[in-house]
Amino acid sequence: MKNFAVILAGCGIYDGTEIHEATLTLLAIKKLGAGYQCFAPDISQHHVINHLTGDEMNEKRNVLVEAARIARGDIKPLSDFNPKNFDALIFPGGFGVAKNLCTVVFDGFNASVNKEIEKAVKEMLKLKKPIGAMCIAPVLIAKIIGDVNVTVGKDEATAETIEKMGATHITANYDDVVIDDKHNVFTTPYYMEATDIVQVYEGAHNIVEAMLKVMG
Amino acid sequence: MKNFAVILAGCGIYDGTEIHEATLTLLAIKKLGAGYQCFAPDISQHHVINHLTGDEMNEKRNVLVEAARIARGDIKPLSDFNPKNFDALIFPGGFGVAKNLCTVVFDGFNASVNKEIEKAVKEMLKLKKPIGAMCIAPVLIAKIIGDVNVTVGKDEATAETIEKMGATHITANYDDVVIDDKHNVFTTPYYMEATDIVQVYEGAHNIVEAMLKVMG
Repeated sequence: MKNFAVILAGCGIYDGTEIHEATLTLLAIKKLGAGYQCFAPDISQHHVINHLTGDEMNEKRNVLVEAARIARGDIKPLSDFNPKNFDALIFPGGFGVAKNLCTVVFDGFNASVNKEIEKAVKEMLKLKKPIGAMCIAPVLIAKIIGDVNVTVGKDEATAETIEKMGATHITANYDDVVIDDKHNVFTTPYYMEATDIVQVYEGAHNIVEAMLKVMG
Repeated sequence: MKNFAVILAGCGIYDGTEIHEATLTLLAIKKLGAGYQCFAPDISQHHVINHLTGDEMNEKRNVLVEAARIARGDIKPLSDFNPKNFDALIFPGGFGVAKNLCTVVFDGFNASVNKEIEKAVKEMLKLKKPIGAMCIAPVLIAKIIGDVNVTVGKDEATAETIEKMGATHITANYDDVVIDDKHNVFTTPYYMEATDIVQVYEGAHNIVEAMLKVMG
């Protein structure tokens, strides 16, 4: 059975991992006959957003502890990730990817990347194992790799940031998967283009299926 | 288009609504051609549980504010719920249902029920509109109605609590839907029996399909 490491960045679209995107990624992985283990870095969230009002809250939360909500407690610190035990690495979206795992929301193409995240991605690249990134997460992959083809759908501002990182942005619909053969990187827009939860699941099915295909 | 009111109790299995169950309920509703609006009571959570360790945290969180994470911000306070605008009411599970919406975890069959929740359920019963409850949520419905047939799968302790409330517990598998024709109440076990996320989605599909069938 092929085994996916799913990297989470908290719990909730505005300060963590988008919940539908994460859940439907897990559903697609299982439905297509593979397995998964969730991971998250044991770090503070950049901030906490009230998802009802959009305002910042005067609270501190931990990325791993909050991501454990999505994983029903079955999650490991990213420091435990061993690339030899997994066939693929995958990043659902949500602003947490661009606030907690890297700093694109604040620093644009000059963003810095969490060291454990960078290490995990580079190790998988070295082993030529597939890496998937959805929604806003392709900015993280573009920042780490540089010269790579990715999509965030049709969002021009984010595409411009990606191009400034040295990557190539490919416009795509919610059900498209952009594949970079050279690096074995797979990207799809999820809620960057999907207008409802059913379309997100179509994207999840398509990207996981495409990744499984190259695993043979 | 048939319209479901989905009632949430927070965000996370141990102190709120179980995230996969909520997300897959929304997916099933949309996939089967209906629509939804999420609601939650604007009340404090009973407590906050660290989902990594299972320990209680010294924090205060609000049920509506945290449930907004699952709803991507598109949620209304339960005080805004008007039964005339909806064709069905549905409760995904998670301990929050039995800690925040009622007190079954602490008080067993003597549990008290949040007044807004009780009002919403009783109004839908009066209008003979279908009510769905998954996982642990049937305890809430049993407490409100009393004489009703429900399932929480094969959990004997919870079944006993339900029977003490005056309800009848029917043993069921993860893909079964128990239907109480008299009250138009639908229940299915979700993670009380499902061993993975694919089985939860099968339950979601089955209960939403069964509810849509009686709506005609």
